[in-house]
This record gives sequence, C-alpha cells and structure tokens, in this order.
Amino acid sequence: MNRSSNSLALLTDLYELTMAYGYWKCGKAEQSAAFHLFFRNSPFHGGYAIAAGLEPVLDFLRSFRLDASDVEYLGTLVGNDGRPLFDAEFLQYLAELELTLDLDAIPEGTVVFPHEPLLRVCGPIVQCQLIETAMLNLINFQSLIATKASRVVMAAQGDAVLEFGLRRAQGIDGGLAASRAAFIGGCAATSNVLAGKRFGIPVKGTHAHSWVMSFDSEPDAFAAYAEAMPNNCVFLVDTYDTLQGVRHAVEVGRRLRESGHRMVGIRLDSGDLAWLSIEARKILDAAGFPDAVIVASNDLDERLIQSLKFQGAAVTVWGVGTKLATAYDQPALGGVYKLGAIQDESQQWQPRIKVSEQLIKTSTPGIQQVRRYVDDDGMAIADMIYNELQPIPETCTAVDFQDATHRTEFAATVAFEDLLKPMIRQGNVVGESIPLDDIRSRALKQLQQFDRTILRIDHPHRYRVGLEHALHDLKAEMVLESRQRIKTGTAT
Amino acid sequence: MNRSSNSLALLTDLYELTMAYGYWKCGKAEQSAAFHLFFRNSPFHGGYAIAAGLEPVLDFLRSFRLDASDVEYLGTLVGNDGRPLFDAEFLQYLAELELTLDLDAIPEGTVVFPHEPLLRVCGPIVQCQLIETAMLNLINFQSLIATKASRVVMAAQGDAVLEFGLRRAQGIDGGLAASRAAFIGGCAATSNVLAGKRFGIPVKGTHAHSWVMSFDSEPDAFAAYAEAMPNNCVFLVDTYDTLQGVRHAVEVGRRLRESGHRMVGIRLDSGDLAWLSIEARKILDAAGFPDAVIVASNDLDERLIQSLKFQGAAVTVWGVGTKLATAYDQPALGGVYKLGAIQDESQQWQPRIKVSEQLIKTSTPGIQQVRRYVDDDGMAIADMIYNELQPIPETCTAVDFQDATHRTEFAATVAFEDLLKPMIRQGNVVGESIPLDDIRSRALKQLQQFDRTILRIDHPHRYRVGLEHALHDLKAEMVLESRQRIKTGTAT
Repeated sequence: MNRSSNSLALLTDLYELTMAYGYWKCGKAEQSAAFHLFFRNSPFHGGYAIAAGLEPVLDFLRSFRLDASDVEYLGTLVGNDGRPLFDAEFLQYLAELELTLDLDAIPEGTVVFPHEPLLRVCGPIVQCQLIETAMLNLINFQSLIATKASRVVMAAQGDAVLEFGLRRAQGIDGGLAASRAAFIGGCAATSNVLAGKRFGIPVKGTHAHSWVMSFDSEPDAFAAYAEAMPNNCVFLVDTYDTLQGVRHAVEVGRRLRESGHRMVGIRLDSGDLAWLSIEARKILDAAGFPDAVIVASNDLDERLIQSLKFQGAAVTVWGVGTKLATAYDQPALGGVYKLGAIQDESQQWQPRIKVSEQLIKTSTPGIQQVRRYVDDDGMAIADMIYNELQPIPETCTAVDFQDATHRTEFAATVAFEDLLKPMIRQGNVVGESIPLDDIRSRALKQLQQFDRTILRIDHPHRYRVGLEHALHDLKAEMVLESRQRIKTGTAT
Repeated sequence: MNRSSNSLALLTDLYELTMAYGYWKCGKAEQSAAFHLFFRNSPFHGGYAIAAGLEPVLDFLRSFRLDASDVEYLGTLVGNDGRPLFDAEFLQYLAELELTLDLDAIPEGTVVFPHEPLLRVCGPIVQCQLIETAMLNLINFQSLIATKASRVVMAAQGDAVLEFGLRRAQGIDGGLAASRAAFIGGCAATSNVLAGKRFGIPVKGTHAHSWVMSFDSEPDAFAAYAEAMPNNCVFLVDTYDTLQGVRHAVEVGRRLRESGHRMVGIRLDSGDLAWLSIEARKILDAAGFPDAVIVASNDLDERLIQSLKFQGAAVTVWGVGTKLATAYDQPALGGVYKLGAIQDESQQWQPRIKVSEQLIKTSTPGIQQVRRYVDDDGMAIADMIYNELQPIPETCTAVDFQDATHRTEFAATVAFEDLLKPMIRQGNVVGESIPLDDIRSRALKQLQQFDRTILRIDHPHRYRVGLEHALHDLKAEMVLESRQRIKTGTAT
C-alpha cells in the first residue's frame, strides 16, 4: 500500500465515511443539506474571536479527491463479522466523487462571536459530512490562535509581539498553522523560518544560550556574533549574569557603532523581567543606546504582559512562544458543525434542530446568515443571525441569544453587512484569495469597530448577538415540538 | 519562488540559521558538540512520561536537505541595514550540507523521567543547531500525548480507550501525530482515518447526531444505518432522549439478530454518564443484550474517567477526544536542548554548563547516558545519568537529582540497561525502525516495571533519578566556578 500518498481526503473521522455509506445505501447521498460551523463560547473567557483558517479550508477542498491508495485502504477495513465495511460499488463512487457543494464563509480576520456560523456548507449530504472533520480542525485551531494572538497584541499596547512557539507547538503543522494564525491576530513576525517562506511572514532571530556557551566567554561570544552578522544584533544577555551581560552587549554595541553598524538591542529570557528590563534600560541609556530595544521572553502570555506593563517594565518587544502557539490556557476551540436544514423529496428545505438539556447546546435551525449592524461612525451595534428560508421584515427585531427578553429593533435605515460571503459554488472556488498581510490588517481594523469594553482581556462586556424574530420563534416552536414528541414517545 | 516545495529543512527557528552563519563565519562550523534533549518536569503533575516521536525525527533527519527554493528564500532575508543576512558563499554551504552527525536516543515507548536525555546529538555544531527546533517540536508533542494517553488508559482499568480528537486537534499534523502518540500510549483505536492509513492504527466510528436528525425519526435512522452497515452498529442514542434512544437501539438490535448480525452497542455523548450508563445497561441486559458495549464520550479525561469508575458507571469503552489530542490541562511539554560538551582545537571534549538562579534550570555537563538498574524481578530500582567522558567505578553511586543528600549505591552485580541507543552514525540511520504495534506493546510492558505508586495519576511517589557521583561533582564544581567568575567579572 502506498502510504506516502499526499492525499488528505481521508483526514476525517471514520463515522463520516460510514454515514456516507449509509446515505449512499439508502439513496440519500445526493440529498441536499445545510450545515453550519460555529463555536458556543469565546475562548480564554474573552468576549470575541478572530476568524481564521479559511484559506487552508479552501486549499483542502480544492484538492479534495480520494486517490487509489485511499480507496484501497478503505477496502481493507472490516466490521465486527470480519467482512468488509464498504462494498466495492461504494468505493468506486468515492473514487469518482468530486465536490459540487456551495460554501459561504466569514472572511479571515473578521471579529466573530458565539453561535455565528463561520462556515455554511450546502450540498449533497455525503459531501457535507466527508469534509466536516478537516474543516473543524482547520477553523478551530487557527481561529483559536488568531484570537490568542490578538489578546497578546492588545496587552502589548503597541509594542511589537514576536511569535516564537515552534519548538513547543503541537506537531509540525501545529507550528506552521500557529505562525500563520498568530500573524493574522497581529503578531509582527515569527521565529519559524518555514512559515516565513510559505506564508511570507517576517522572520526574526539572533542567537541562543548555546552560542554563548560554545565560546570561552560571553564578550568573545557577542564579539564573534557581531563580526559575523553586524546587521542583526540582539544579544541574549542572561546566559550567566544578566546585567553583566547587558554591559558586555554595550561594549560590543560600541564597537559595532564604530564600524558603521547599529546594535538592535538585547534579549532577556529569564529572571525578574520587570526589574531586569528597567535596570537594563538604565545601562543602555547611560551608555548612549536609548534606541536599543529590549526583547523579553520566557513563558509570556497576555496576562503576564499586562502585569509587566503595570509594573513599568522597560520591555519594547515581546517574544511569545509556548503560551501563544498552543493557546496554553485553552488549547481547543470547541467549534461544532450542525445540520440546519435538509431538502425533502420534493426539494423543499426542512429546518432541523438538535435539542439538548442545556439550552446553549440546542442547535439553531435554518439556512443561516449573519448580519452586522453598524452606526454612523462605523462602530458595530449588534449582530443578528437570520434564516434565509424565512422572509424578514424591513424593520428587523433581534432576540438576544442568551436572554430572550432582550430584543433590539433595527430600522430599515440602519447600515449593515452580511458577513457570510460566497466562497465556493458548485465545487468551484469563487471567493478571492486574500493576501495574508491584508487579512492581518483587516483584523486590526475590525477590532476598532468594537468598544474596548467588549475586547478587554478579562470580564468583557457582552456584545449582543440575536436571532431574527421569526427564526427565534421557529427555534422555540421546534424545541417545544421536539420535547412533546419525546414525552409522548412518538415519531422520534 | 516555489512555495509548494515539500522540503521541511527550514522547519527551524531563524536563530539556528543565524548561529549557523556565525559558526561558519568564525571557522567553528565543523567543531564537534554534544547536545541533549530532555524535559525538567513530568507532565500533568504526574510522575513519568512515555518517550515518543523518534521515528518522525529519523524521517526528518533522513530527508534533511535544503532545496533550491529554501536557499533562494534565505537569500531574500535582510538585516537592520536592509542588506542580506546571509552571504552567497554560506548559502552555497547550506545547499550542499548533508548531515554527518551521530544520534543516540531512548526508544519510543520507554518510560522516562525528568532530566534524562531522550536524544543525544553529537557532531558539527552547525548541524546540531539546525535540527534543534524540529526535534524539539516532534519529541515534545508526541511524548506529551503518549503520556496523556497512558494516564487515560490507566484510569480506564482495562476498558478500551478510543482516540477521537482530530476535529479539535492543533492542525492537521497535530491530529495525525496525536493519533500516533495516543496509540503508543495505549489507546486501542482512533477515529482518524488518515492516521489509520498512514500508521496502521485500527479505526473506529459509526454515526453522528446529524445522521439521526436527517431522518424523520430516530427508529428510522437506526434502522437505515443497520440496513446499510449491519456489521458496525454502535447507535448514538442521545440525539433526543437518551433512554428512549437505548430502547430504539434495542428494537433495531433485535432485528439485526434475527437477520444473523450482532449489534455492537450504543454510545452516550451527553448528560450524566454515570446514571445514564447504569440505566442503559439495565435496559440492554433486560432486553437480552448483555454483551452490547456502552461507549461514552463528552470531554473525558483521566480524572473524569476515574470519577465515573468510582461512581460505578457501566461504561465499557471510552471515547476520548479534545482533552487527549491537545493534552488539554498541559498542552506543551517543556523539553529543552542543551549543550553538554564541545571539542576544543585539539579535539578534546570540554564540558559546558548553563547556570541559572534556579538550580533545576542549571544544565548538566558532559556526554550523557542513562542507566536503568533493575532488580531480580525485573522491576526498575532507579536511574542514573552518567558522563561518558568520565570513567565510572564498578560500584556506582547515584546522587539524587533533587536532593544531593540522598545517594544510592549500585553494586557491580546489579543488572542494568543503558537507555540511549545508537540511532544515527555519521548521518546514516543505524537504529532499526520498530513497528508501531511493538512500540505500543513496549510502553504497556515497560509500565509494569514500575510500582503503581510511581505511575498513579495524582501525587505520585517520586522515582529516583540521580547523577553518577563523578558527574555530580563535576557539575557542582562547574556551578561554583561559574558563579565565581560572574562575581569577579572575569572571563565570562
């Protein structure tokens, strides 16, 4: 078997394939369905998320095709009777399958909120299911990291944030995807060279402790580095004694200046970063290096940066690694993918709902779109999820998702934007590919549409997301009906 | 620029390349060095880890070679004066670089402890540095997940554990590598089909809530599934009402039996898993399905499984996703890679140390090996790290890593095994590739060498790891000397 195939079409949970087989067997494979990908809670106890991962999703869908080794492998799987799980005719169907579905998505770099579909997939139910797992994987992780980066960058209050996470990231692609998403969230650069090459992200780096240790003394090490690379000197000063290291850096910085170069600065990677940065700043300033940057690293995250800022740390550049690239305090975004509607035999869309004892886990029916209302200054007022299968009035009422007693009316004159944009039609990519720099700019600009109370790191004010009135009523009716059917034991 | 190149040679932090340039510029590129990769604390507040990630490291090293697009990209990088970071001659050197180093490693599936080198790399310092980041990434993540899986499997007390994490994993490879490592740690199967194909791991899965929702009723949905796939029936029973769902499964199970098939069981994915599993068991048993399995899933981890077991849950198979594949409560293993020795101009090895205010962060000098002593019953007694540059006596004394007053003497008659094995010599892989099944068996067997008090999930007893006496003395001397030099401001 050719296990070195590059096909990613089997990047899926097995149950997507067994369901696909079931749909195919009972003649429902081509039945149209509408699924929505959304999360239920903003990560990190924050109030928002930054959508990311769409371009990789489009790449995945563009190249989606089972190859011969995929089909061969599926043919080896057996059930509890030792007989094949899939019959040959179905495998042939899979081998010939080309995606013909429609995808609408909220562009990368958009500020998004719980329950809003980031992706909407409409098309043959088999296709909707086969791509579910990969889409969840890509969107969950990149949105998580873009959001984390956005919070870290906010805490840094204008200082540059560098992403240094590769060595602790969750696998190779965990590192690459994290670098991409961190850049979207506002990081200025990465240490990850392959991410720089693949995505055009600026890369940064100078030397490690091992460089200093490999020489007989720290001054020798700094001098040798400056000699080799006079245009990239950020000296790591904490291999032995930090402030002595700063003085050694100053000596080499002077020689660099004499030879027409400029020391960029120093890096602190251990100890009391508040105190050491302030002391290092004094030494650098006194020696005539007021422009030398002080890079700090060592398990930083947004809360530690906030605390260091509060303590008056003289850090000017923040290197953030593990805590950013793994989203350490919440390493997964709980994105889900739920059926909203399905076409019956007469091609009529039927809304569908999954009830739960917890109201927040009850899914929303319909074919959904997200409308963001903005005021005359361009500031976002509230978002409203509506159902494209239901006509909506000129003056819309949004019923708050968490508190049905709170209703907001939007006159027809209020400006809005519908966030889900057409990306794929009939299997063909129609949405334009956006350069990563533009996605990053979009995210930074979007954040300015929201009040700081909504964006703040802890205990944020909740931005209103509601269901359009008719959709809210439909959902409420369907919940009641479902509970009724459960109680009487009928139909379900 | 060809950004679609498959080369992973640039999967590195930029500073490895700038240091490589520095070494090359000052004529030290080929100077031999010895580095060790180790972690300082067992993950999850546990007492051990399972080594994993070596085979991917060997794959990475086997194919390590900068291609034309890599070199071209490096040529575009500039310093703070806008001029190229690297000169053309160095880029040519990189383009021609083939690894000639030696790698020793602790085999995958071995139980390991803090401070023990999992990898030891000896060779030209440029090569040691260029591969650092990728090795850390691969070993850190896979060892982390293998360890997490091992804990979850221990909590399941012999029940099968299935890994379901792909949709929440950190990127594509985050998912694939997690499936591989979880299998090493003792999981029985994965939902990840591509991991099944690539690594030969058994795959499992049946259907989701969306399957049930796409039919008019739950009995219809179960019946259609059973019709399509009678040899793979684990019915997900909680789409509407869980215990009603169990009764619906029983009805279909009876029809399956009549047609000569066997219902595998049911799956619970929400609600009170303890109570529901007990009630479901009663229904299944009363209906004549005592062998039907009850699979439980929903944000499970080792502590929740332990609690459910304690409550008498009637679960027989555990589906573990997010919490396992992301190692949710500690999503990174803090593995580091430290210089232990370097050859001087006369080819003599000189030990090196990095001091720190925190003793635990002070590195260990030398070219290290790990010796595991075992008693007559094959149970591990203690581990001792020794320095191959220092002769060791027949009767060895190990000085405990954390408590220098605790010393253990090992008579020459005590059996032992040296854990680091030759994997690469002069750039050529010499270690044999071990099938994944055998690695998994090794891990399960290795765990039996350790007392349960060492392996337990919380507050484990500490397994002794010591430094061989002469190495301990060398380290102590070097720490003192380094502090002395810092104090007097000389040499460093």
